[in-house]
Amino acid sequence: MRFDDEFRTELTQLFAWRRDVRRFRSDPISDEIVEQLIATTAFAPSVGYSQPSRFVRVDSPERRAQIIAEYERCNGDAAQTYSGEQHARYVAMKLAGLREAPIHLAVFLDRETSRGSGLGRATMPETLAYSTVLAIHTLWLMARAMGIGVGWVSILDPEVVIRILDVPAQWSFVAYLCLGYPQEEHLDRELVRAGWETDESEATRLHRR
Amino acid sequence: MRFDDEFRTELTQLFAWRRDVRRFRSDPISDEIVEQLIATTAFAPSVGYSQPSRFVRVDSPERRAQIIAEYERCNGDAAQTYSGEQHARYVAMKLAGLREAPIHLAVFLDRETSRGSGLGRATMPETLAYSTVLAIHTLWLMARAMGIGVGWVSILDPEVVIRILDVPAQWSFVAYLCLGYPQEEHLDRELVRAGWETDESEATRLHRR
Repeated sequence: MRFDDEFRTELTQLFAWRRDVRRFRSDPISDEIVEQLIATTAFAPSVGYSQPSRFVRVDSPERRAQIIAEYERCNGDAAQTYSGEQHARYVAMKLAGLREAPIHLAVFLDRETSRGSGLGRATMPETLAYSTVLAIHTLWLMARAMGIGVGWVSILDPEVVIRILDVPAQWSFVAYLCLGYPQEEHLDRELVRAGWETDESEATRLHRR
Repeated sequence: MRFDDEFRTELTQLFAWRRDVRRFRSDPISDEIVEQLIATTAFAPSVGYSQPSRFVRVDSPERRAQIIAEYERCNGDAAQTYSGEQHARYVAMKLAGLREAPIHLAVFLDRETSRGSGLGRATMPETLAYSTVLAIHTLWLMARAMGIGVGWVSILDPEVVIRILDVPAQWSFVAYLCLGYPQEEHLDRELVRAGWETDESEATRLHRR
């Protein structure tokens, strides 16, 4: 299987246009599309082929309201850690689209996944969580290729989310995703637009040993 | 920016044909390609746009030899945790291509990244590591689109890797990657081929709340 220049150019466009979306249109997303996105995650790499990811679609209005309240509590706490101009910038930003997103998807890992027999994770048990992150990114890229925006909400207390969603005790919380069609497609990052960060970075500097 | 059915089909092919590669050809990979792959990681999502990933290319024969020895030590320890037929299967598998891979890339995260001002990670500091995993997956997919195989080696003690590679104290080890042209392109997973795991999984089952 070979990929050509045209595909690589489009793949780069996909990486560039993939945004963390917080402004959603209210159009619904069909059950079939959600199932298709979850199915795509089966291709994601996982340590020892352990496939530990567990996806929970949250539809209950009561549970959604509790998640939103928990987000607002954590976000309020976070805002208090900034002062002056930075505080003003923080509170002015929209960091999640929990109220508007038609689909809420909570993502967990099963610490006792029956698969993989522990291969590859004896010295680095965190690779189980990393496997779930790889599944999330796979879903995210496919969603964007379908015109669907994903927003990753991390301003939540994992223990509270686990309590609200009543999941098995052996599951750990990894991410809370909002999915929906975005109000706007854009290349620039929300946090650059809001003046929170710039595009300069040392992350792409190659170190040598 | 819209993506069409043809692109989505090819993207699915990319996900499917992306393998964890342990059998590399000896053909070199140019410096330009390595730089290009690292540059692509700038598009990856990162919490609060913190871009914490740090890439270290390991060329020194002494350091490579020390990494290989550490891998062999950890892999020997891991093998001892299995018995009978499973032990035989484990020791028969080739789990890394450290000796053959032309490029060794160690990936770290900078816990004190100057970027992001902590946004999005107060309640979930692990999102910094998750951001680095997203960068690795971005590199992996682009590498595969260029015909280059990536193998993620996790059978290493992070503290020992940090000592061997002499990186700043504020860096945490996330992954050790082998890059090279693969001896074989294949769809089936190495661990399925070796009888270690099957393709049946409950990971793609959608739970509801």
